[in-house]
Amino acid sequence: MEKIYQGKTKDVYSLGKNEILLQFKDDVTGENGVFDPGANTVGLRIEGAGRSGLKMTTFFFNKLNSLNIPTHFIASDLDKVTMTVKEAEVLGKGLEVICRYRAVGSFLRRYAAYCEEGQALDSFVEVTIKDDERGDPVISDDALAMLGILNREQYTELKELTKMICGIVKEELAKKDLELYDIKLEFGHDKATGELILIDEISGGNMRVYKDGKYVAPLELEKLFLS
Amino acid sequence: MEKIYQGKTKDVYSLGKNEILLQFKDDVTGENGVFDPGANTVGLRIEGAGRSGLKMTTFFFNKLNSLNIPTHFIASDLDKVTMTVKEAEVLGKGLEVICRYRAVGSFLRRYAAYCEEGQALDSFVEVTIKDDERGDPVISDDALAMLGILNREQYTELKELTKMICGIVKEELAKKDLELYDIKLEFGHDKATGELILIDEISGGNMRVYKDGKYVAPLELEKLFLS
Repeated sequence: MEKIYQGKTKDVYSLGKNEILLQFKDDVTGENGVFDPGANTVGLRIEGAGRSGLKMTTFFFNKLNSLNIPTHFIASDLDKVTMTVKEAEVLGKGLEVICRYRAVGSFLRRYAAYCEEGQALDSFVEVTIKDDERGDPVISDDALAMLGILNREQYTELKELTKMICGIVKEELAKKDLELYDIKLEFGHDKATGELILIDEISGGNMRVYKDGKYVAPLELEKLFLS
Repeated sequence: MEKIYQGKTKDVYSLGKNEILLQFKDDVTGENGVFDPGANTVGLRIEGAGRSGLKMTTFFFNKLNSLNIPTHFIASDLDKVTMTVKEAEVLGKGLEVICRYRAVGSFLRRYAAYCEEGQALDSFVEVTIKDDERGDPVISDDALAMLGILNREQYTELKELTKMICGIVKEELAKKDLELYDIKLEFGHDKATGELILIDEISGGNMRVYKDGKYVAPLELEKLFLS
């Protein structure tokens, strides 16, 4: 089994035949020991964070697959803390798609002149470039088209799929009185079929969830949500 | 005559009856003594910069007005280094509209993972928020709509008008073998009529122009262009 990539929170192995094994790690993104789903650095190591993230991810991917929404998910092994997925080509050199329901994080930092912290947003979608060196800059549909990363049709498909998936995640969380503020997804094209599919994970590590107006950290979220 | 605003490169006086007087100054934007049209600080003071900018601006506004493109321009006085304009309400709390023909400046800094310095762009338009504290962040059409700054229709009108104006500026420069790389415009709504009009100035101070692949500084540009 060949390790093909060492990520911040996951290691990636090739299983051949267009299949990939993701090894979830206990490292989480953040800065100075404080968790931040938007951060580019591994801020801290939390015992059990990998398994917790995998449990959440498995729940959501199973849910999405049951609704015929295309994801890379094949199976997960909670003991080994691994997930088997379809091999996919990332969009461009890697894009992140954010869906926002309330103004927090980098959106607030950019546009605080025009919004209040926590202000409601109507499933606002934006794309950022995965580029640690340049601080993951946002990029508009116009710029994605101009630079040949995504054409109009691809952007529209990506945006619609993002809204659909995030709406489902939001609804599932709401069943446990948890409110989704924002969430970051990654997409790719299935290497075997070319289809646009959701890749990476869906866990506390890439979303901000609040309960009774208070932020819920990833491990606590998994306990509240999957209990 | 009441001074209503002290800008980085211009002071603004009310003349009453929906008219404004702009006093061009010799201060230019930049950092550490180096001119940068994208900078938020006054980097240096250049003797004659105000008059030079006004001459360029007068040329372009006269050109645009002759083509029935709506601007705030009424008249200018080169001796007093002032320009009389129609009073306008800025968009939101002030937006800048950039049109790019080549990848330089902040576009390159953001998207260098996907483009080369100086790469041709097809009159790419983007909007930034005038917000020194937050480094003038770019904002997409989706975000402008979400935050109630500009609706779709207003954005489309702004983008089309920008492309038209910048196309004219580019063409005029080309007549003197000068190549426009990028340019920053400001728009507002005419206080008397509500019409969307070009405001501020069009000079070397808000564009990057090259000759034979070499950057041409504002004062040099005015000499080459208006000679």
